Amino acid sequence: MRQAHDDALMALAFAEAEAAAAAGEVPVGAVLVNEAGDVLATGRNRREERGDPTAHAELEALRTAFAGGGWRRQRTTLYVTLEPCPMCMGALLQSRVSRLVFGALDVKAGAALSLYRMAEDPRLNHRMEVVGGVRGEQCSEQLRSFFKELRKAKKTSAER
Amino acid sequence: MRQAHDDALMALAFAEAEAAAAAGEVPVGAVLVNEAGDVLATGRNRREERGDPTAHAELEALRTAFAGGGWRRQRTTLYVTLEPCPMCMGALLQSRVSRLVFGALDVKAGAALSLYRMAEDPRLNHRMEVVGGVRGEQCSEQLRSFFKELRKAKKTSAER
Repeated sequence: MRQAHDDALMALAFAEAEAAAAAGEVPVGAVLVNEAGDVLATGRNRREERGDPTAHAELEALRTAFAGGGWRRQRTTLYVTLEPCPMCMGALLQSRVSRLVFGALDVKAGAALSLYRMAEDPRLNHRMEVVGGVRGEQCSEQLRSFFKELRKAKKTSAER
Repeated sequence: MRQAHDDALMALAFAEAEAAAAAGEVPVGAVLVNEAGDVLATGRNRREERGDPTAHAELEALRTAFAGGGWRRQRTTLYVTLEPCPMCMGALLQSRVSRLVFGALDVKAGAALSLYRMAEDPRLNHRMEVVGGVRGEQCSEQLRSFFKELRKAKKTSAER
Protein backbone atom coordinates (compact mmCIF):
# COMPACT_ATOMS: atom_id res chain seq x y z
CA MET A 1 0.00 0.00 0.00
CA ARG A 2 2.64 2.49 1.09
CA GLN A 3 4.86 1.22 -1.72
CA ALA A 4 2.20 1.92 -4.38
CA HIS A 5 1.65 5.35 -2.86
CA ASP A 6 5.38 6.09 -2.92
CA ASP A 7 5.58 4.94 -6.52
CA ALA A 8 2.68 7.16 -7.63
CA LEU A 9 4.11 10.24 -5.89
CA MET A 10 7.56 9.60 -7.35
CA ALA A 11 5.89 9.45 -10.78
CA LEU A 12 4.56 12.95 -10.06
CA ALA A 13 8.05 14.14 -9.03
CA PHE A 14 9.37 12.57 -12.23
CA ALA A 15 6.86 14.54 -14.30
CA GLU A 16 8.11 17.73 -12.60
CA ALA A 17 11.66 16.76 -13.54
CA GLU A 18 10.54 16.23 -17.14
CA ALA A 19 9.15 19.76 -17.16
CA ALA A 20 12.52 21.02 -15.86
CA ALA A 21 14.36 19.20 -18.66
CA ALA A 22 11.99 20.66 -21.26
CA ALA A 23 12.93 24.12 -19.93
CA GLY A 24 16.65 23.38 -20.26
CA GLU A 25 17.19 22.75 -16.54
CA VAL A 26 18.91 19.73 -14.99
CA PRO A 27 15.89 17.43 -14.49
CA VAL A 28 15.10 17.17 -10.81
CA GLY A 29 11.54 17.27 -9.47
CA ALA A 30 10.02 17.16 -6.00
CA VAL A 31 6.62 16.75 -4.33
CA LEU A 32 5.77 17.46 -0.70
CA VAL A 33 2.77 15.66 0.85
CA ASN A 34 1.19 15.67 4.29
CA GLU A 35 0.23 12.66 6.39
CA ALA A 36 -3.15 12.37 4.70
CA GLY A 37 -1.37 12.11 1.36
CA ASP A 38 -2.46 15.56 0.14
CA VAL A 39 0.04 17.27 -2.14
CA LEU A 40 1.14 20.48 -0.39
CA ALA A 41 3.46 21.63 -3.18
CA THR A 42 5.46 20.50 -6.17
CA GLY A 43 8.82 21.93 -7.17
CA ARG A 44 11.35 21.57 -9.90
CA ASN A 45 14.87 22.77 -10.50
CA ARG A 46 14.74 26.40 -11.69
CA ARG A 47 18.37 27.46 -11.30
CA GLU A 48 18.73 28.77 -14.85
CA GLU A 49 15.27 30.34 -15.00
CA ARG A 50 15.74 32.20 -11.73
CA GLY A 51 19.49 32.71 -12.07
CA ASP A 52 19.53 31.52 -8.46
CA PRO A 53 21.95 28.77 -7.44
CA THR A 54 19.72 27.80 -4.51
CA ALA A 55 16.60 27.18 -6.65
CA HIS A 56 16.76 23.38 -6.32
CA ALA A 57 13.55 21.36 -6.63
CA GLU A 58 13.43 20.56 -2.91
CA LEU A 59 13.82 24.19 -1.76
CA GLU A 60 11.24 25.31 -4.32
CA ALA A 61 8.72 22.78 -2.96
CA LEU A 62 9.44 23.61 0.70
CA ARG A 63 9.19 27.36 0.13
CA THR A 64 5.94 27.02 -1.83
CA ALA A 65 4.40 24.77 0.82
CA PHE A 66 5.53 26.73 3.85
CA ALA A 67 5.42 30.36 2.76
CA GLY A 68 3.33 31.78 5.57
CA GLY A 69 3.95 28.97 8.05
CA GLY A 70 2.52 25.59 8.89
CA TRP A 71 5.78 23.66 8.95
CA ARG A 72 5.68 23.13 12.70
CA ARG A 73 2.17 21.70 12.67
CA GLN A 74 2.29 18.69 10.34
CA ARG A 75 4.19 15.55 9.46
CA THR A 76 5.34 15.66 5.84
CA THR A 77 7.06 13.45 3.27
CA LEU A 78 9.24 14.83 0.50
CA TYR A 79 9.58 12.91 -2.77
CA VAL A 80 12.47 13.89 -5.02
CA THR A 81 13.94 12.25 -8.12
CA LEU A 82 17.59 12.71 -7.00
CA GLU A 83 19.26 12.26 -3.62
CA PRO A 84 19.37 15.73 -1.98
CA CYS A 85 22.59 17.77 -1.72
CA PRO A 86 23.80 19.12 1.67
CA MET A 87 21.85 22.39 1.23
CA CYS A 88 18.59 20.56 0.55
CA MET A 89 19.11 17.96 3.30
CA GLY A 90 19.74 20.87 5.66
CA ALA A 91 16.53 22.53 4.47
CA LEU A 92 14.54 19.31 5.02
CA LEU A 93 15.90 19.14 8.56
CA GLN A 94 15.09 22.82 9.19
CA SER A 95 11.55 22.15 7.90
CA ARG A 96 11.19 19.07 10.12
CA VAL A 97 10.18 16.84 7.22
CA SER A 98 9.43 13.36 8.65
CA ARG A 99 10.24 11.19 5.68
CA LEU A 100 12.37 11.52 2.55
CA VAL A 101 11.81 9.31 -0.50
CA PHE A 102 14.27 9.76 -3.36
CA GLY A 103 14.91 8.17 -6.74
CA ALA A 104 18.49 8.15 -8.03
CA LEU A 105 21.55 8.15 -5.79
CA ASP A 106 23.87 11.16 -6.16
CA VAL A 107 27.25 9.61 -5.44
CA LYS A 108 29.04 12.93 -6.05
CA ALA A 109 26.98 15.23 -3.84
CA GLY A 110 24.25 13.32 -1.99
CA ALA A 111 23.85 14.08 1.70
CA ALA A 112 21.22 11.47 2.63
CA LEU A 113 23.32 8.33 2.01
CA SER A 114 26.26 9.02 -0.32
CA LEU A 115 28.63 11.67 1.11
CA TYR A 116 26.86 12.40 4.38
CA ARG A 117 24.07 10.63 6.24
CA MET A 118 22.51 13.78 7.67
CA ALA A 119 19.10 12.28 8.40
CA GLU A 120 20.56 10.03 11.07
CA ASP A 121 23.15 12.34 12.64
CA PRO A 122 22.36 12.16 16.39
CA ARG A 123 23.99 15.59 16.89
CA LEU A 124 21.36 17.36 14.76
CA ASN A 125 17.99 18.25 16.30
CA HIS A 126 15.79 16.35 13.86
CA ARG A 127 15.75 12.84 12.45
CA MET A 128 13.92 11.60 9.36
CA GLU A 129 13.22 8.27 7.70
CA VAL A 130 15.00 7.85 4.35
CA VAL A 131 13.95 5.58 1.49
CA GLY A 132 16.11 5.61 -1.66
CA GLY A 133 15.85 3.99 -5.06
CA VAL A 134 12.12 4.46 -5.73
CA ARG A 135 11.97 4.54 -9.55
CA GLY A 136 15.73 4.87 -9.14
CA GLU A 137 16.71 3.52 -12.55
CA GLN A 138 14.14 5.69 -14.34
CA CYS A 139 15.35 8.82 -12.53
CA SER A 140 19.03 7.99 -13.23
CA GLU A 141 18.27 7.42 -16.89
CA GLN A 142 16.46 10.76 -17.09
CA LEU A 143 19.57 12.56 -15.83
CA ARG A 144 21.97 10.58 -18.02
CA SER A 145 19.85 11.28 -21.07
CA PHE A 146 19.69 15.03 -20.27
CA PHE A 147 23.48 15.34 -19.95
CA LYS A 148 24.03 13.25 -23.09
CA GLU A 149 21.80 15.61 -25.09
CA LEU A 150 23.57 18.60 -23.54
CA ARG A 151 26.99 17.31 -24.58
CA LYS A 152 25.67 16.59 -28.07
CA ALA A 153 24.26 20.12 -28.37
CA LYS A 154 27.53 21.66 -27.17
CA LYS A 155 29.53 19.57 -29.62
CA THR A 156 27.23 20.56 -32.50
CA SER A 157 27.46 24.25 -31.66
CA ALA A 158 31.27 23.96 -31.37
CA GLU A 159 31.42 22.42 -34.86
CA ARG A 160 29.50 25.26 -36.47
CA MET B 1 44.03 45.92 6.32
CA ARG B 2 41.95 42.87 5.55
CA GLN B 3 41.34 42.45 9.26
CA ALA B 4 39.92 46.00 9.61
CA HIS B 5 37.76 45.36 6.55
CA ASP B 6 36.47 42.08 8.02
CA ASP B 7 35.72 43.81 11.30
CA ALA B 8 33.76 46.62 9.63
CA LEU B 9 31.69 44.22 7.55
CA MET B 10 30.98 42.03 10.58
CA ALA B 11 29.76 45.16 12.36
CA LEU B 12 27.29 45.59 9.48
CA ALA B 13 26.17 41.95 9.80
CA PHE B 14 25.80 42.54 13.54
CA ALA B 15 23.52 45.52 12.88
CA GLU B 16 21.37 43.28 10.67
CA ALA B 17 21.17 40.76 13.52
CA GLU B 18 20.11 43.56 15.88
CA ALA B 19 17.27 44.40 13.51
CA ALA B 20 16.24 40.72 13.54
CA ALA B 21 16.19 40.68 17.35
CA ALA B 22 14.08 43.86 17.40
CA ALA B 23 11.57 42.04 15.18
CA GLY B 24 11.46 39.06 17.56
CA GLU B 25 13.67 36.83 15.41
CA VAL B 26 16.73 34.90 16.57
CA PRO B 27 19.45 37.51 15.90
CA VAL B 28 21.54 36.41 12.95
CA GLY B 29 22.68 38.82 10.25
CA ALA B 30 24.67 38.44 7.04
CA VAL B 31 26.38 40.59 4.42
CA LEU B 32 27.62 39.49 1.00
CA VAL B 33 30.40 41.50 -0.68
CA ASN B 34 32.29 41.16 -3.95
CA GLU B 35 36.05 41.29 -4.47
CA ALA B 36 36.05 45.08 -4.69
CA GLY B 37 34.39 45.19 -1.27
CA ASP B 38 31.01 46.39 -2.60
CA VAL B 39 28.05 45.16 -0.57
CA LEU B 40 25.91 43.02 -2.90
CA ALA B 41 23.23 42.26 -0.32
CA THR B 42 22.46 42.11 3.37
CA GLY B 43 20.19 39.54 4.98
CA ARG B 44 18.79 38.74 8.37
CA ASN B 45 16.89 35.86 9.87
CA ARG B 46 13.21 36.18 8.91
CA ARG B 47 11.87 32.75 9.83
CA GLU B 48 9.00 34.05 11.94
CA GLU B 49 8.15 36.96 9.65
CA ARG B 50 8.00 34.75 6.56
CA GLY B 51 6.77 31.61 8.32
CA ASP B 52 9.50 29.93 6.29
CA PRO B 53 11.97 27.62 8.05
CA THR B 54 14.57 28.22 5.32
CA ALA B 55 14.61 32.03 5.71
CA HIS B 56 18.02 32.13 7.43
CA ALA B 57 20.16 35.26 7.11
CA GLU B 58 22.63 33.62 4.71
CA LEU B 59 19.97 32.35 2.31
CA GLU B 60 18.22 35.72 2.39
CA ALA B 61 21.46 37.48 1.45
CA LEU B 62 22.36 34.98 -1.29
CA ARG B 63 18.90 35.09 -2.84
CA THR B 64 18.78 38.88 -2.77
CA ALA B 65 22.24 39.15 -4.34
CA PHE B 66 21.79 36.49 -6.99
CA ALA B 67 18.15 36.73 -8.03
CA GLY B 68 18.59 37.03 -11.75
CA GLY B 69 22.09 35.56 -11.89
CA GLY B 70 25.65 36.72 -11.55
CA TRP B 71 26.82 34.09 -9.09
CA ARG B 72 29.06 32.39 -11.62
CA ARG B 73 30.87 35.59 -12.55
CA GLN B 74 32.35 36.94 -9.32
CA ARG B 75 34.33 36.06 -6.24
CA THR B 76 32.34 36.82 -3.10
CA THR B 77 32.76 36.84 0.68
CA LEU B 78 29.90 36.17 3.07
CA TYR B 79 29.96 37.69 6.56
CA VAL B 80 27.57 36.18 9.10
CA THR B 81 27.27 36.59 12.85
CA LEU B 82 26.80 32.85 13.55
CA GLU B 83 28.52 29.79 12.09
CA PRO B 84 26.27 28.53 9.24
CA CYS B 85 24.10 25.40 9.57
CA PRO B 86 24.33 22.56 7.00
CA MET B 87 21.63 24.13 4.81
CA CYS B 88 23.42 27.46 4.65
CA MET B 89 26.88 25.94 4.15
CA GLY B 90 25.39 23.93 1.29
CA ALA B 91 23.90 27.11 -0.16
CA LEU B 92 27.27 28.90 0.07
CA LEU B 93 28.89 26.00 -1.79
CA GLN B 94 26.12 26.01 -4.43
CA SER B 95 26.68 29.76 -4.85
CA ARG B 96 30.45 29.31 -5.11
CA VAL B 97 31.18 31.85 -2.40
CA SER B 98 34.97 32.15 -2.08
CA ARG B 99 35.31 33.14 1.52
CA LEU B 100 33.22 32.80 4.67
CA VAL B 101 33.77 35.00 7.72
CA PHE B 102 31.63 34.24 10.75
CA GLY B 103 31.31 35.51 14.31
CA ALA B 104 30.12 33.04 16.96
CA LEU B 105 30.67 29.29 16.78
CA ASP B 106 27.50 27.17 16.67
CA VAL B 107 28.63 24.05 18.50
CA LYS B 108 25.18 22.45 18.16
CA ALA B 109 24.56 22.91 14.44
CA GLY B 110 27.53 24.56 12.73
CA ALA B 111 28.70 23.02 9.47
CA ALA B 112 31.84 25.11 8.83
CA LEU B 113 33.90 23.92 11.81
CA SER B 114 31.71 22.46 14.57
CA LEU B 115 29.71 19.41 13.35
CA TYR B 116 30.91 19.28 9.75
CA ARG B 117 33.78 20.97 7.94
CA MET B 118 32.01 21.28 4.62
CA ALA B 119 34.21 24.01 3.21
CA GLU B 120 37.18 21.69 3.05
CA ASP B 121 35.51 18.43 2.00
CA PRO B 122 37.55 17.29 -1.04
CA ARG B 123 34.56 15.28 -2.33
CA LEU B 124 32.47 18.42 -2.88
CA ASN B 125 32.98 20.49 -6.02
CA HIS B 126 33.81 23.79 -4.35
CA ARG B 127 36.19 24.87 -1.62
CA MET B 128 36.10 28.11 0.37
CA GLU B 129 38.29 29.88 2.89
CA VAL B 130 36.80 30.02 6.40
CA VAL B 131 37.59 32.56 9.11
CA GLY B 132 35.72 32.22 12.41
CA GLY B 133 35.54 34.30 15.57
CA VAL B 134 35.44 37.81 14.06
CA ARG B 135 33.59 39.82 16.75
CA GLY B 136 32.89 36.32 18.08
CA GLU B 137 32.26 37.29 21.69
CA GLN B 138 29.96 40.17 20.73
CA CYS B 139 27.92 37.90 18.43
CA SER B 140 27.70 35.15 21.09
CA GLU B 141 26.58 37.66 23.69
CA GLN B 142 23.89 38.99 21.33
CA LEU B 143 22.41 35.48 21.00
CA ARG B 144 22.70 34.69 24.72
CA SER B 145 20.99 37.95 25.60
CA PHE B 146 18.15 37.30 23.10
CA PHE B 147 17.43 33.83 24.51
CA LYS B 148 17.66 35.10 28.08
CA GLU B 149 15.03 37.77 27.34
CA LEU B 150 12.88 35.16 25.59
CA ARG B 151 12.95 32.85 28.62
CA LYS B 152 12.15 35.77 30.89
CA ALA B 153 9.17 36.78 28.70
CA LYS B 154 7.86 33.20 28.64
CA LYS B 155 8.20 32.90 32.39
CA THR B 156 6.37 36.20 32.93
CA SER B 157 3.53 35.19 30.60
CA ALA B 158 3.29 31.77 32.36
CA GLU B 159 2.95 33.54 35.73
CA ARG B 160 0.06 35.66 34.56
